[in-house]
Amino acid sequence: MLDLHRISAEEFKQVEKIPVAVVLDDVRSEMNVGSVFRTADAFVIEHIALCGITGKPPSHEIHKTALGAEDSVEWCYYKTALEAVEKLQQQGYKICSIEQVHGSISIEKFPIDPQEKYVIVFGNEVKGVSQTVVDASDCCIEIPQLGTKHSLNIACSAAITMWHFFNALKGK
Amino acid sequence: MLDLHRISAEEFKQVEKIPVAVVLDDVRSEMNVGSVFRTADAFVIEHIALCGITGKPPSHEIHKTALGAEDSVEWCYYKTALEAVEKLQQQGYKICSIEQVHGSISIEKFPIDPQEKYVIVFGNEVKGVSQTVVDASDCCIEIPQLGTKHSLNIACSAAITMWHFFNALKGK
Repeated sequence: MLDLHRISAEEFKQVEKIPVAVVLDDVRSEMNVGSVFRTADAFVIEHIALCGITGKPPSHEIHKTALGAEDSVEWCYYKTALEAVEKLQQQGYKICSIEQVHGSISIEKFPIDPQEKYVIVFGNEVKGVSQTVVDASDCCIEIPQLGTKHSLNIACSAAITMWHFFNALKGK
Repeated sequence: MLDLHRISAEEFKQVEKIPVAVVLDDVRSEMNVGSVFRTADAFVIEHIALCGITGKPPSHEIHKTALGAEDSVEWCYYKTALEAVEKLQQQGYKICSIEQVHGSISIEKFPIDPQEKYVIVFGNEVKGVSQTVVDASDCCIEIPQLGTKHSLNIACSAAITMWHFFNALKGK
């Protein structure tokens, strides 16, 4: 095994992040929320906005899958994802909902500009991203997939999307 | 919402797969196993080899996260991952363990050859891929990450890796 140079939650706060924030719009499962925290820690995401019914730390269920990443990654709470998205848009973030809709861009074709700041929005396990949030977004991104389900678990979609942005933006 | 052209489990069997098999080496959590099934369905993976203590369908826990993908994606069981890997290697698969070891290749730099067949191996949540399997592998691939944990949930690692191979191989 490698010496992995693990850092503490305090040191994490000082590390340069990629200019990407995550918005969780009514995510029901706290295990999914925890998993998003763990992945956001790995890919040095700026912050997570937990919205609506999405669970918040401290939570035993979130901790079980976040494994402490809920203490390293910055987070905040909004009553609605629309409120979060509108505020972040005013701050200059480009809002990208991860959703299969007409006009969504396939993730591997989405051009990531290192000069921009991005918000990536993930929706409820059943309903997806709220229509009002989709309407307010600058673009929608989809992960192309075949198979019988045409849907990925939200923790998996979020992992693929965060990885994609991290890979394009790290060291830029 | 789009018309997503969902197909049945029977139709899935006929769909052309990407030349990638997944080996799960002593994966403890059946929720992780189910999630790997769901992602493998989305990215038309050839089959999954469940090994050692890894749970097998039928299982209520696997079903909860696979959501039926355990009926579409082919799977088989081996007593050890080493046995699976040796058999698949004899069949011409290139064995890639997903593990952070000296000499592992960062996933975005890993050259995927559309003429090859690949096995991607994921290990136990705590111990990772068995050393004997790492030793028998043709290469090790790692997902680069920063942060406090230096580890991703196995369902998330598997999603990123399967996506990476799917994106490189679909339509080839």
